[in-house]
Amino acid sequence: MRISVILAHPDNRSFNHAIAETALKALTSNGHHCHYHDLYKEKFDPLLPSQEIPKAGNIDPSIAAHCQQISTVDGIIIVHPNWWGQPPAVLKGWIDRVFRPGVTYEFEEGDQGEGIPVGLLRAQRAVVFNTSNTNAKREIEVFGDPLETLWKNCIFGLCGIHHVYRHTFSVMVTSTLAQRQGWLEHVTATVHKYFPSV
Amino acid sequence: MRISVILAHPDNRSFNHAIAETALKALTSNGHHCHYHDLYKEKFDPLLPSQEIPKAGNIDPSIAAHCQQISTVDGIIIVHPNWWGQPPAVLKGWIDRVFRPGVTYEFEEGDQGEGIPVGLLRAQRAVVFNTSNTNAKREIEVFGDPLETLWKNCIFGLCGIHHVYRHTFSVMVTSTLAQRQGWLEHVTATVHKYFPSV
Repeated sequence: MRISVILAHPDNRSFNHAIAETALKALTSNGHHCHYHDLYKEKFDPLLPSQEIPKAGNIDPSIAAHCQQISTVDGIIIVHPNWWGQPPAVLKGWIDRVFRPGVTYEFEEGDQGEGIPVGLLRAQRAVVFNTSNTNAKREIEVFGDPLETLWKNCIFGLCGIHHVYRHTFSVMVTSTLAQRQGWLEHVTATVHKYFPSV
Repeated sequence: MRISVILAHPDNRSFNHAIAETALKALTSNGHHCHYHDLYKEKFDPLLPSQEIPKAGNIDPSIAAHCQQISTVDGIIIVHPNWWGQPPAVLKGWIDRVFRPGVTYEFEEGDQGEGIPVGLLRAQRAVVFNTSNTNAKREIEVFGDPLETLWKNCIFGLCGIHHVYRHTFSVMVTSTLAQRQGWLEHVTATVHKYFPSV
């Protein structure tokens, strides 16, 4: 299978990088072909310009390449830290620009854009790995863990992916080496479960 | 009073621009001094770099200016479309870079960053205006309206602003001129209520 792995963290020594590299290793060992995007490293431009908003808009070629790829892969893995209950801006902009009408969703004929869109993504499974410095109880009780609905309903659900596994590793800042090693084992096990050997 | 007005929309003919301009007019007529940031027009760079993450990190001078301003204003008005249950990337990045430790929040002594931070913003009131093409019932039932907790709890609540009014104008794409005129009257009335004449 072909799997996209999308990473958003500015520090290439980050645990997010370790998660992505662990996932890539497990995917490759299972015989999958990976499309890896370290969005910071690629200097992805996250600003959706006005002319790209319409369905028939004038799209930058680099965005068209991202669109072509995401619409044809069999699975998607997203890796990012929880910053303010949301992804880093670079990943938000990747969604803003790549998850276009006609690529990841579309409105039915006669719908002017106010109705319920149809998801177009071919992928049937997505996995989201997050890191956080907030403990799980506080994340739910104080903040409502918005990343849960953002990824499962607002983004992947709308685009036709209904099998989404999401896991947050926390608390990063006080974690021990043994904990982090265990977390990477969880990453490997998750990849084996959701994207098994072909 | 000094009020920051932060706008995130790429099209300067957008209704979001009309909202921001209406808010500015009402604020000015009430005798307030406005700091207006049209983030797209300013070409705000939303990518938080690695070296800016630590509290004592090396901050770009343009970001330091934003930090100085946001930490001293008496009120904040945010205007943006609902894109995937979140703000556009340019505004997400403004939060990522400007809402820094030591500027909008800080951890208490002895806390390594895993605890409950103290809000530092001087402003006591914030207003968030959103536009959307999803009707209110579907926004709540299917998506859980994540922007509500994002602004009220994850961002402003954490930074010490507990009086937050948020309103979404929808459905934009099928709205009539008369509706949009009424919506701008709502903007004016809201500004008069939350930031009355001094």
